[in-house]
Amino acid sequence: MRFDLASSMDLLRRTPGTLRDLLDGVGEAWSRSNEGADTFSPFDVVGHLIDGEETDWMPRARIILARDPEATFVPYDRFRHYARNRGRSLGSLLDELARLRAENLAQLAAWKLGETELDLRARHPSLGPVTLRQLLAGWVVHDLGHIAQVVRVMAKQYHDEVGPWAPYLPVLTDHEAPRS
Amino acid sequence: MRFDLASSMDLLRRTPGTLRDLLDGVGEAWSRSNEGADTFSPFDVVGHLIDGEETDWMPRARIILARDPEATFVPYDRFRHYARNRGRSLGSLLDELARLRAENLAQLAAWKLGETELDLRARHPSLGPVTLRQLLAGWVVHDLGHIAQVVRVMAKQYHDEVGPWAPYLPVLTDHEAPRS
Repeated sequence: MRFDLASSMDLLRRTPGTLRDLLDGVGEAWSRSNEGADTFSPFDVVGHLIDGEETDWMPRARIILARDPEATFVPYDRFRHYARNRGRSLGSLLDELARLRAENLAQLAAWKLGETELDLRARHPSLGPVTLRQLLAGWVVHDLGHIAQVVRVMAKQYHDEVGPWAPYLPVLTDHEAPRS
Repeated sequence: MRFDLASSMDLLRRTPGTLRDLLDGVGEAWSRSNEGADTFSPFDVVGHLIDGEETDWMPRARIILARDPEATFVPYDRFRHYARNRGRSLGSLLDELARLRAENLAQLAAWKLGETELDLRARHPSLGPVTLRQLLAGWVVHDLGHIAQVVRVMAKQYHDEVGPWAPYLPVLTDHEAPRS
């Protein structure tokens, strides 16, 4: 599929509600458990997505739109949320994600991006030149990947409870070695 | 985590709304694309979950509750939905899943299951003896795994659009060989 701005924004708009449906009001056994050392719990994923709203996608889009293709993104801190959200409730993070995402999508719409802007480039610190189109496609895929992670981590909490069904439920053995 | 009936039912209740948030109103390029031959699109996943409501989880629970541990489940047809849902709209399938799930959860609640019932057994045609507790845990994990599949399949439609980000987005390369 070719990149489409309107449907990409439509998918980005859905993420906070999807995560609220999955997580709002679940117990901490579901929201705070992870897949092992150095992996994210669902709570951590919501924090990581908030970090993305504040420090990653839109700040990088602004760098690209400044039209200096040699400008380089600030490296992204994948662990900023650990300190930022200590003591926060999951419900308050879900509210914050919804607010930040709505603000960012309103700004994105206000830019009225066309193909010319989507072709603009800047430099990723390790990946090299990237276009605004690739950044926005990456934002969509990043959301979807982290929703997949949330439900995978939740599913794994019942690994031992499904008994002989475990080999029939591949989500239980996905990412046994962390991939992100 | 040990199996908990109340929180399992809470998770099962969330699935139709989660899928509606993700899918209702997306174009067919998102809802009808899959991961390759013999894999499910998001549309197919919703149909497969409806099949589960009608032919799998509750019918098997009823067999277990009939208290004959030698009773054997009817094998489950993973492809019933292909013929059943030809010509249907995704919106109508989402409505149907929500209705069937609500009915099934009302029935499950009406049974007022305790530990004695959760320990009851019947035979899975290939896995052998399984308990009602394992069946219900499997239902939860099955839901979560198929939500993960929906977002993974959607993410993969943008594989080529993210450019150099692809190696940083592991969801794009999950299940390259189908696992379910």
